[in-house]
Amino acid sequence: MVRNIYAPYAGKIVTFNLIRIFIALVLFCSQVYAQADSASDQVVEQLQGDALSSDLAWEILASITSEVGPRMAGTEADKRAVQWAVDKMHGLGFERVWTEPVTFPRWFRNSESAEILSPAAQKLAVTAIGGSPSTGGPLEGELVQFDTLDALKAATLAEVQGKVVFLSTRMRKTREGKGYGETVINRSKGPFVAASKGASALLIRSIGTDSDRLPHTGMMSGSEPGERIPTAAVSIPDADNLMILLSGKVPVTISLNLDVGFDGEATSYNVVGEFDGSEDLKKHILLGAHLDSWDLGTGAVDDGAGVAIVLATAKLVAELSPRPRNGTRVVLYANEEQGVYGGKAYAELHEKELDSAIIGAESDLGADRIYRFKTRVLPKAEPSIALLEKHLKTLGIERESNELAGGGADVGQMRQLGLPVIDLNQDASRYFDLHHTANDTLDKVNPEYLQQNLAAWVTLAYLTANSVVDFGPVQPSE
Amino acid sequence: MVRNIYAPYAGKIVTFNLIRIFIALVLFCSQVYAQADSASDQVVEQLQGDALSSDLAWEILASITSEVGPRMAGTEADKRAVQWAVDKMHGLGFERVWTEPVTFPRWFRNSESAEILSPAAQKLAVTAIGGSPSTGGPLEGELVQFDTLDALKAATLAEVQGKVVFLSTRMRKTREGKGYGETVINRSKGPFVAASKGASALLIRSIGTDSDRLPHTGMMSGSEPGERIPTAAVSIPDADNLMILLSGKVPVTISLNLDVGFDGEATSYNVVGEFDGSEDLKKHILLGAHLDSWDLGTGAVDDGAGVAIVLATAKLVAELSPRPRNGTRVVLYANEEQGVYGGKAYAELHEKELDSAIIGAESDLGADRIYRFKTRVLPKAEPSIALLEKHLKTLGIERESNELAGGGADVGQMRQLGLPVIDLNQDASRYFDLHHTANDTLDKVNPEYLQQNLAAWVTLAYLTANSVVDFGPVQPSE
Repeated sequence: MVRNIYAPYAGKIVTFNLIRIFIALVLFCSQVYAQADSASDQVVEQLQGDALSSDLAWEILASITSEVGPRMAGTEADKRAVQWAVDKMHGLGFERVWTEPVTFPRWFRNSESAEILSPAAQKLAVTAIGGSPSTGGPLEGELVQFDTLDALKAATLAEVQGKVVFLSTRMRKTREGKGYGETVINRSKGPFVAASKGASALLIRSIGTDSDRLPHTGMMSGSEPGERIPTAAVSIPDADNLMILLSGKVPVTISLNLDVGFDGEATSYNVVGEFDGSEDLKKHILLGAHLDSWDLGTGAVDDGAGVAIVLATAKLVAELSPRPRNGTRVVLYANEEQGVYGGKAYAELHEKELDSAIIGAESDLGADRIYRFKTRVLPKAEPSIALLEKHLKTLGIERESNELAGGGADVGQMRQLGLPVIDLNQDASRYFDLHHTANDTLDKVNPEYLQQNLAAWVTLAYLTANSVVDFGPVQPSE
Repeated sequence: MVRNIYAPYAGKIVTFNLIRIFIALVLFCSQVYAQADSASDQVVEQLQGDALSSDLAWEILASITSEVGPRMAGTEADKRAVQWAVDKMHGLGFERVWTEPVTFPRWFRNSESAEILSPAAQKLAVTAIGGSPSTGGPLEGELVQFDTLDALKAATLAEVQGKVVFLSTRMRKTREGKGYGETVINRSKGPFVAASKGASALLIRSIGTDSDRLPHTGMMSGSEPGERIPTAAVSIPDADNLMILLSGKVPVTISLNLDVGFDGEATSYNVVGEFDGSEDLKKHILLGAHLDSWDLGTGAVDDGAGVAIVLATAKLVAELSPRPRNGTRVVLYANEEQGVYGGKAYAELHEKELDSAIIGAESDLGADRIYRFKTRVLPKAEPSIALLEKHLKTLGIERESNELAGGGADVGQMRQLGLPVIDLNQDASRYFDLHHTANDTLDKVNPEYLQQNLAAWVTLAYLTANSVVDFGPVQPSE
């Protein structure tokens, strides 16, 4: 018997060979990565250059704001917006375009007005809050003012009963838009708190950062238990004026007249379009924005800009030859404004096949400069994210490593089911000057910043659609 | 006979003596001036210091905007404004306060709305132009657009007949506010030109420099011969949107519904108040602003700021001990907005005694920083003007020597009768963002700039009221 002299070393040899194989693999893979990097570098640079000189997003945005205009969910204009989106996707050459029904309670705004009755008559610039009931004619009452919702919560019934509560909290302006989260509870929960104390109506200082006589609308919570009372937002200059009058010794009384309310159900549509990838992988990146807007402005920054950016992104990426490996799906969600109905409907309908989406992203914070991005992906996707980081840096966009991405209102519904997401964060300093007001119009969008947005989005779309690593699924609880 | 050896030199001696007297006089006067200068230097420095830390103008402005608010001539609020002014003058300690009636045609604004009908329905933010007749219900028509009034003048009847003319001229923003004069003819004369071509109505791009959905009202000419047609201004973002639609191939039709018009005569009042000077000279400086405002905003920059500045100026100067030699008269003019009715009425009533006013000045361009002053005075007043120049320079205000002062809309009526005037020119860059809109509210006034205005006005008031030289009368034809 020939003694295998290597036998005693067998384990070590296996280890040794594994190490050799591992080294060889690493060398091989790093070459592949290097080649892939180099190839994708060129594509990304070309794409970014195209985006930075492209008028496509602007043209789409000018089209939806002028040819459709305000498109509140459930209105005739909402129907036109759906048709516009289908036509636009076809015109851009999407390979498949379809609609998916979304049903919700229809809220209408017929008319709204308010005025100070005493100590000195003057009109107030107000707008009803979505979900508000009508006043049923002029509702007169004395104002009782609270600095914050917490102060209202602490008030006695006797202080509030039969009066019009005025919540005067001022929203602060930041690049991240954090002041919104701090104050929007006045609008979402305020009506229920005021109602629980016996108030006849609620007036809130607009949740916004401007100083225009243009009040900010928006929705009250749809899930809060309890009674709803007529609720309106007053413009910020009017809120300031009320504060001056309230500092006097004379009671301040107002009249509020809201002809608004719910009148049954309406059906709108998520509009979905797809471009194929270069390999038939039945997988896609999931880009989104919401098609509906509030009725006061033409929905340019909220969310016409998002619609324009994701449509133009898909088009620019689809024009590549070869296209990235995976396809691009764009979803323009119905009725985000009144309760994320489109996002929820999409998540419900596509829950079973959600693994066909390799990543999700939504544009819904206007189109000022993107300065930061955040991710919520598997750790193994790090090489792809590092590559994304490298290319976004050239556009002035830094990686935020301390916060996880949320995915946006609609795509966030799928994030909750495990979809990995990436956020491209716009500078929100100016966004809440315009948000949900009549001032949300095309002229507020800076064409150069819109191009920077587009350049960031094509970078994100190309690199993720072409990635060979999996970004998810992430923990649904995350 | 003793020969007068000096006889041959008599003429020369006289000349010599005259020169000696002249030199002595100059020396004496310059000492007097130097003493006066030195004394007035201290007073002016003290006054400016007081003004720069005074809240008085702000308090007056907050009072009129909150306690009266919008005060269009001939309305109930206009009556309240008159009472407010009388009470405020009494409260400030004016020695004499009285009113002088001013009668004018009453123009009312009940309601106004407009919408695009085709190619895609959306609402337009419009406001009727003062002097406009009603449409008598919805008036529908196709838009025919012109870049300028001259282009409209050059149009044929066939191009315009039965259509709604849209004048789209854009106002430029300058520190001097010169863009206003260039474009306001669209509003003042446009209605008559459009009517003469058979137009059914006129829509103008707002005469303003903002990008808010808040249209600018203002008056059409009251003296233009010819028919008036319904006329409204559309907000600047709406004008931009119309331009996009008009660049398409489909006709743009709108519906305009104005319930406005004249309904008889109204009487309001110039409110006049006086503080005495330290010497009973029956002379006064004539400071003014206009009490009325348009109905859309609270008239903070137009012209609450002016009202606040001239009232606070008179008060600060009256608190001096000793007061300046001459008195201070403040006139708050009625109905400047609809045709300078108050200024004209004052000029007519006081024409015979106008020489009791030693100088006139009006504040009616908001309250941003005063950067320049202009004069229209006799050349012999130069030493006083030089002293004013010296003290205004410390407030960052330069003398403008190439243009003559106008006196402002109201005081300008007296200038035409020979009253010398001085203009303190505010930076008007921001003024036409707000002018005649709902956005003309207290929050738009910068308290620090308001104090700089007050400091300039007390300087002007003190130095002119205390002057020993005559500023006028100037040539009425000037």
